[in-house]
Amino acid sequence: MSARAGIIVTGTEVLSGRVADANGPWVSERLSELGVDVAHMICVGDRADDMTTALRFLAGNGVDLIVTTGGLGPTADDMTAELVAAFAGREMVLDEGMERRISEIVAEFARRMNFDPAGLREGTRKQAMVPQGSIALDPAGTAPGLVVETEAGPTVVVLPGPPRELQTMWPAAVAAEPFARVLERSDEYAMASMKMFGIPESTLAKSLREIEEGGVDLAPLEITTCLRKGAELEIDVRYTRDAEPLREALFDGLRERHAAVIYTESGETIDEIVAGLLRGHTIATGESCTGGKLAGRLTDIPGSSDYVAGGVVAYSNEAKSRLLGVPADVIEGKGAVSPEVAQALARGAIERFGADLGVGITGVAGPGGGTEEKPVGFVCFCVASADGRVMARDVQLPGNRSDVRERSVSVAMHMLRRFLLGVEPPF
Amino acid sequence: MSARAGIIVTGTEVLSGRVADANGPWVSERLSELGVDVAHMICVGDRADDMTTALRFLAGNGVDLIVTTGGLGPTADDMTAELVAAFAGREMVLDEGMERRISEIVAEFARRMNFDPAGLREGTRKQAMVPQGSIALDPAGTAPGLVVETEAGPTVVVLPGPPRELQTMWPAAVAAEPFARVLERSDEYAMASMKMFGIPESTLAKSLREIEEGGVDLAPLEITTCLRKGAELEIDVRYTRDAEPLREALFDGLRERHAAVIYTESGETIDEIVAGLLRGHTIATGESCTGGKLAGRLTDIPGSSDYVAGGVVAYSNEAKSRLLGVPADVIEGKGAVSPEVAQALARGAIERFGADLGVGITGVAGPGGGTEEKPVGFVCFCVASADGRVMARDVQLPGNRSDVRERSVSVAMHMLRRFLLGVEPPF
Repeated sequence: MSARAGIIVTGTEVLSGRVADANGPWVSERLSELGVDVAHMICVGDRADDMTTALRFLAGNGVDLIVTTGGLGPTADDMTAELVAAFAGREMVLDEGMERRISEIVAEFARRMNFDPAGLREGTRKQAMVPQGSIALDPAGTAPGLVVETEAGPTVVVLPGPPRELQTMWPAAVAAEPFARVLERSDEYAMASMKMFGIPESTLAKSLREIEEGGVDLAPLEITTCLRKGAELEIDVRYTRDAEPLREALFDGLRERHAAVIYTESGETIDEIVAGLLRGHTIATGESCTGGKLAGRLTDIPGSSDYVAGGVVAYSNEAKSRLLGVPADVIEGKGAVSPEVAQALARGAIERFGADLGVGITGVAGPGGGTEEKPVGFVCFCVASADGRVMARDVQLPGNRSDVRERSVSVAMHMLRRFLLGVEPPF
Repeated sequence: MSARAGIIVTGTEVLSGRVADANGPWVSERLSELGVDVAHMICVGDRADDMTTALRFLAGNGVDLIVTTGGLGPTADDMTAELVAAFAGREMVLDEGMERRISEIVAEFARRMNFDPAGLREGTRKQAMVPQGSIALDPAGTAPGLVVETEAGPTVVVLPGPPRELQTMWPAAVAAEPFARVLERSDEYAMASMKMFGIPESTLAKSLREIEEGGVDLAPLEITTCLRKGAELEIDVRYTRDAEPLREALFDGLRERHAAVIYTESGETIDEIVAGLLRGHTIATGESCTGGKLAGRLTDIPGSSDYVAGGVVAYSNEAKSRLLGVPADVIEGKGAVSPEVAQALARGAIERFGADLGVGITGVAGPGGGTEEKPVGFVCFCVASADGRVMARDVQLPGNRSDVRERSVSVAMHMLRRFLLGVEPPF
């Protein structure tokens, strides 16, 4: 049996839809990895009543654990700690050690940012107030996290809203004794994942049915398939250890059918995989329709300066010729969006940056610029190496401007992986 | 008084954090525009019990309206319609007109996508089953939406999960008679917003207190402040028409104190503002630490090919010199991260692309590469024009690699706006 948890995300700006919440999904993934079932994720505004009813609802639903995010700031509308204390039937008390700790942090912050520390000090005492008998977690910003036990009810873990602070604090929360006790009540789950690029979700659904009809009982496996932006198809399986043979049979069945499109079974992202393969090389980009987004993704990875030489965003035709030496007559004759120009962009990038590898992308991102022959979503890709190898593809991508640009970057990353492994793409 | 609503987002892939939900925030914004208060947004997995308890919780909390998203597909784990029917105490009945309508849609879809229609037909009857007495909304995909009244309880609006379908169907849902009746119970609200860049949230909080102490009653205004990524501070105010003078007094007070950092009161994003100001110019970028992300943001805007000439991602020192003509002795003498190199990147971009305007960015994004003098987060910016104007700033940005890169792009966008308006930044 699994322990069950609820998540409460606070913040009017999240509830109103103005800001996308990253904390709820992040906490949910971590809980799932720990074998804890998430029953409900509730988003509430900065209204005391709505928070309290959410806590009561989850408790009434029999969850073992409630994780809250946000509402720990220094201002009056940050009420999570007080509301959780009231819910747990505990007084708020001053944690003097915590007050000293926060004062130090605030003073240091004010010094570095050149702020007047006086304006920041007000909130220090408020943030050092904690429910009596709770465990205060060391702040990653200025707010301590809290682990609060309730009598005969769920343990409540109170975490700050800024994602970096929440994530920094998470291991300490998990290690806290009441949290650990919840985990002990839970079966151990294993997780496995497989990622594919280049097949539709309906094909995978069909394969799952075939595997089941072939005699593999999939019922004990909790299978989630999800299509991420950029058309990466992820199959996640959560299962108890005794179902390992079934999980293996499932993956064998998928490998038999889809070996050509599986790119990892170890949970890595395509960006991490490509980063690993690029070590020892140097790479440069020549981008038109993606406008720098491929270079941006390649350099997201820490340490990418070791292998990314740079790139050119050649948005205008003149820039394509001037900066990357794409012959004007090729642009004229074949069109700016053509396999020939994609290849010239890749070659130009290799030459101008003195790199081993080059990627060229040119396409119609839309909303304007589409023609019968080259509609919005038509994108030409080329990966080339200084020693003359070339991999080229023309792809018709679905979606609006933003989708086409994002998916183009994903296609380029997957082509790069295949180029570095010496395997032609199935698309 | 406002009508109150709850939103239920269904889907294990959303609850587990693997897929980010776009529907909840979208529906919430629309409801808010209609003057409906959203009390709770709940995310549940594909488990019948959890959905039912969420419906009961919201009803028990006295909401007038519940909007559900997802769970209307043709497969067995799509159970929203049945669960809502049970909740409303209604039988499921076949809507024969709807069955014919869905059959047509499915046949047309299969024809266009070259799928075998046989495999798709299975789900048609299931999707045509609706709670007795409910209003079925014309499908935007293959699933009809539903508006279901419950006895003495909230009206439930059932919408499909794919965002395009949901958004297409929304006007019909709002126009349905039971929804319209909920809206009649609601006051009309007005919304106003103000955006600032370059002041900490605590300073704004102090100003709000001062304005209140100065005699402006802020209680009738629903004020939300939120700090968006890149340190943009947004103040949103929702209020009934009769509170307009208070809203004006609030904004006057903020203008008096913070005129220098307010960049819009009309809800536009900085990207849209800069795009508007750039018409008639041409711009090129020379990026180091941001690795193409500034060019990527500039070209996010449809029609940006009219003014974005292109950019160079000069990640290596060699690329800085070779592609943008940054003198090697300047890099050697002042360091790759220096105001001098930022300016040379901007000037090089102007020259190489033949643009009117250039932006140069060089900094320490981390995690490595920081020194005592130039720690992680230290970034040098320069905006320059072909006619010799220059605006330069060195900024110390907080956060990790990803934060520093994203914030750098925001700083550059705000510097660009100020450069184009001829106003020096206050930072």
